[in-house]
Amino acid sequence: MSFPAGECLLSFLFVFLVFGLSSVAQVVLGRGDFGQHLSINLGFGIGVTLGVHAAGGISGAHLNAAITLTHCLLGNLPWRKLPAYLMGQFLGSFTAAATVFGLYYDALHDYTKGNFTVMGPTATASIFCTYPAPYVSLLGGFFTEFIATLMLLLGILVIHDEKNNGALKGTQALLTGILVLGIGLGMGMNTGYAINPSRDLPPRVFTAIAGWGMDVFTAGHHWWWVPLTAPVLGSLAGVLIHKLFIDLHNQPVPESGNEKAQPVVETSTL
Amino acid sequence: MSFPAGECLLSFLFVFLVFGLSSVAQVVLGRGDFGQHLSINLGFGIGVTLGVHAAGGISGAHLNAAITLTHCLLGNLPWRKLPAYLMGQFLGSFTAAATVFGLYYDALHDYTKGNFTVMGPTATASIFCTYPAPYVSLLGGFFTEFIATLMLLLGILVIHDEKNNGALKGTQALLTGILVLGIGLGMGMNTGYAINPSRDLPPRVFTAIAGWGMDVFTAGHHWWWVPLTAPVLGSLAGVLIHKLFIDLHNQPVPESGNEKAQPVVETSTL
Amino acid sequence: MSFPAGECLLSFLFVFLVFGLSSVAQVVLGRGDFGQHLSINLGFGIGVTLGVHAAGGISGAHLNAAITLTHCLLGNLPWRKLPAYLMGQFLGSFTAAATVFGLYYDALHDYTKGNFTVMGPTATASIFCTYPAPYVSLLGGFFTEFIATLMLLLGILVIHDEKNNGALKGTQALLTGILVLGIGLGMGMNTGYAINPSRDLPPRVFTAIAGWGMDVFTAGHHWWWVPLTAPVLGSLAGVLIHKLFIDLHNQPVPESGNEKAQPVVETSTL
Amino acid sequence: MSFPAGECLLSFLFVFLVFGLSSVAQVVLGRGDFGQHLSINLGFGIGVTLGVHAAGGISGAHLNAAITLTHCLLGNLPWRKLPAYLMGQFLGSFTAAATVFGLYYDALHDYTKGNFTVMGPTATASIFCTYPAPYVSLLGGFFTEFIATLMLLLGILVIHDEKNNGALKGTQALLTGILVLGIGLGMGMNTGYAINPSRDLPPRVFTAIAGWGMDVFTAGHHWWWVPLTAPVLGSLAGVLIHKLFIDLHNQPVPESGNEKAQPVVETSTL
Repeated sequence: MSFPAGECLLSFLFVFLVFGLSSVAQVVLGRGDFGQHLSINLGFGIGVTLGVHAAGGISGAHLNAAITLTHCLLGNLPWRKLPAYLMGQFLGSFTAAATVFGLYYDALHDYTKGNFTVMGPTATASIFCTYPAPYVSLLGGFFTEFIATLMLLLGILVIHDEKNNGALKGTQALLTGILVLGIGLGMGMNTGYAINPSRDLPPRVFTAIAGWGMDVFTAGHHWWWVPLTAPVLGSLAGVLIHKLFIDLHNQPVPESGNEKAQPVVETSTL
Repeated sequence: MSFPAGECLLSFLFVFLVFGLSSVAQVVLGRGDFGQHLSINLGFGIGVTLGVHAAGGISGAHLNAAITLTHCLLGNLPWRKLPAYLMGQFLGSFTAAATVFGLYYDALHDYTKGNFTVMGPTATASIFCTYPAPYVSLLGGFFTEFIATLMLLLGILVIHDEKNNGALKGTQALLTGILVLGIGLGMGMNTGYAINPSRDLPPRVFTAIAGWGMDVFTAGHHWWWVPLTAPVLGSLAGVLIHKLFIDLHNQPVPESGNEKAQPVVETSTL
Repeated sequence: MSFPAGECLLSFLFVFLVFGLSSVAQVVLGRGDFGQHLSINLGFGIGVTLGVHAAGGISGAHLNAAITLTHCLLGNLPWRKLPAYLMGQFLGSFTAAATVFGLYYDALHDYTKGNFTVMGPTATASIFCTYPAPYVSLLGGFFTEFIATLMLLLGILVIHDEKNNGALKGTQALLTGILVLGIGLGMGMNTGYAINPSRDLPPRVFTAIAGWGMDVFTAGHHWWWVPLTAPVLGSLAGVLIHKLFIDLHNQPVPESGNEKAQPVVETSTL
Repeated sequence: MSFPAGECLLSFLFVFLVFGLSSVAQVVLGRGDFGQHLSINLGFGIGVTLGVHAAGGISGAHLNAAITLTHCLLGNLPWRKLPAYLMGQFLGSFTAAATVFGLYYDALHDYTKGNFTVMGPTATASIFCTYPAPYVSLLGGFFTEFIATLMLLLGILVIHDEKNNGALKGTQALLTGILVLGIGLGMGMNTGYAINPSRDLPPRVFTAIAGWGMDVFTAGHHWWWVPLTAPVLGSLAGVLIHKLFIDLHNQPVPESGNEKAQPVVETSTL
């Protein structure tokens, strides 16, 4: 196992998730006076941007176990390295949850009167991990996580696609954060957009230990396994769709090659 | 017909509109708890940024049938390619509407009790395509879509104008998204800023089929044809105004050439 | 007179102000359902970004008569060119006001029942030009416009300061928009942050003609002349402060030259 | 003492804090009609971006006495220069507080009826410096400031880390502002995120003089000393963690060097 990778992942998942989870805490515990739903979307977006800056040079933005697994399945990452990555991601995410718990320890007690619950008027478990909305069926929730992760992957791939029209190098982390902001704005209501097993399971384990109990696993018809599986399928589907619809057409095709070669000219000659 | 172009358009319009439409759904169905009007403006802006990243290298940001048609009218794109573009745009947009319908299927049923309507207290048709505000006359609505699309084109052209003071290459997609955000912030209230036939008609057809019925075509005094025509005229007018007021003056004019040549110096010598 | 400059100014002030004014209209006439105060701040910021992109190569971002006048006073722009600039700015700004009036003609009538007023519960004059808040004294208002314009100039100068730590070329327009967003977030409540004679007087004249009457000049203790004078003094003061505190220290000073020469190293060696 | 550094610091802390403090004033005194909590977070973020642009080339973004002190402790800045930096930061911050007091003099009197208080329904001291929330213990508040500053430092270091995956040169100031926005969104509720002795003490001294009295020092169980100490420890801890988890792994390690060398390729070969 390559421990360097594991240690690094710890550091950046820690950074990324502290920003994300703390913004949820501030909205929930602040009763809307210190931010609204948009704050959460911005908080996760900014966390991802910083996480990519922290992670990029070391492990290719492996902030997400679903993407790590996709790399392995596609042969880009040796399977023997997978355990170190997953462990690093788990430890980083768990530490982030513990840090945010520490940050908002006083506020949590003030808000809940010491009664940490998953459901009910002063429920606080959703600060740490995701739960489906009451109206969502299991199939609907699974589909949401699948599509949202598919969109995440499509977004990451077109942002980094240097053969096509990717973002300027050095601004890709910012764009990836904006992408995650967009997912939260449009695809977050049903399930809280986990789109990442590493963002969801370790904080759930933390809350089970820290006082919320086993309800965190039984709530939402045992929802906990969906954020572990749907994002993996969504990630694979995103890579596949990108290959089919965009990547294949980047190779020069004689038939319509004239537009392709000069897209900027085309626009500026309007 | 060049099917590659058509297939690609499918993929990026799909990406672009899923972000936009889903942000409307989250605001409407979330009853304001999961975002407000700003979320919709941000959602469409981010969708456009990602769409341009996906599309740019292949077809010059043809995410908009009005712009595609303008290219044909100006001789930048052969007319024989128009059908493939329009078909790709239609299929992408239709698929995006179907995806968002799937994403929010449970929420739609919970919100409407299964009664999908275009008007009334639990109207949901505006998630998918645009309708004019009650106070807007047909002329006022047409003028709004005309001006908003004109502003879209002026914005795109100055952002990409490398002879003048365009945006840094690789950041133009971001700026185009910000431009669309600005249009939504200021020119969206009257008509929902379609500014794009491809964004409006296919989701309208989808809703007609999916349960909202033919009301989607009769509502707003048969509003449906305005988002198909006004943007085309606005797009042409935008190109024309840019040529008259900006483009012609980029060629070195001896009389005032000294300021033009050194704008940065001028500012920094303040 | 160099008419090219005048014609160009028309085009970009038109673009810039249409975004700004329309975002105010949408907030006021939409009764808060289509945006809040932040929308206005964002709308003006985005308008400025687009205006700088449109203007930059031609006239050095002269979107503001106070800055144009400052250029003349400092000898960077010949005085004989001033009238053409001012006329271009006036025409562009007046046309923008007329366009937004057209865009929201239906909504204005619906909101006011046809009674266009400067004060009162359905006042709408503030969509077009600025008025002081009821609690603000004339001196307080003058000071606010002075300081806000001073901050605008300091911001523009440090963003464009390539000898120091300016923004990346091609992203300066975006940063200038963010600067104006910041001014609106913090210095906008007292007076509506005109910070620009060209943004304020022409729309005021337009409203006087279009139905609001001479109240637009008498309101706020004849407020109209403040946005014409305070920004000019603020602009000059900003340039002066920049010269004194920052610009003079960009020349290599032996005594503390070691930090200056390697700021990036310093940070990265933390 | 190197007075040039001192004078420069004056200018940029002045700029940075005027944006930040005035945005708080506008939210508090505007009773929510001119911005909400998000405005404050945006205002400080934009202020930091402009401050870094103003400061960068001269003194390496020393907008924060905690970071200046960290530089001295690490041997990057000679101790003999520390007094000039601290004095410059104090004067700049004090001047900024006085400016915002002047800007909102009329509004302060209108809002408070001339009774400037630290606590109570029309408390206004929090416009200028930070106070802990009622529910926060001293330990909880200290920990919050420690962690928030630690996150600030980690963020700054990964944004500027050119050996790893830092932000594009010339966009780092923007990213630093976004980082501070993120801290405000998630870590601001407990203590108002001072994360900087220079941002907190001088405005506190100003308010003590300007009419709020010695309550500004006794409020919150003598809170005033926490923003002076916790950020210094947080800054040191941030540098240490960065060295341990990220910096050490930037040197080529043979064992896992193949991923490290080609992170971009890895992503684009998905």
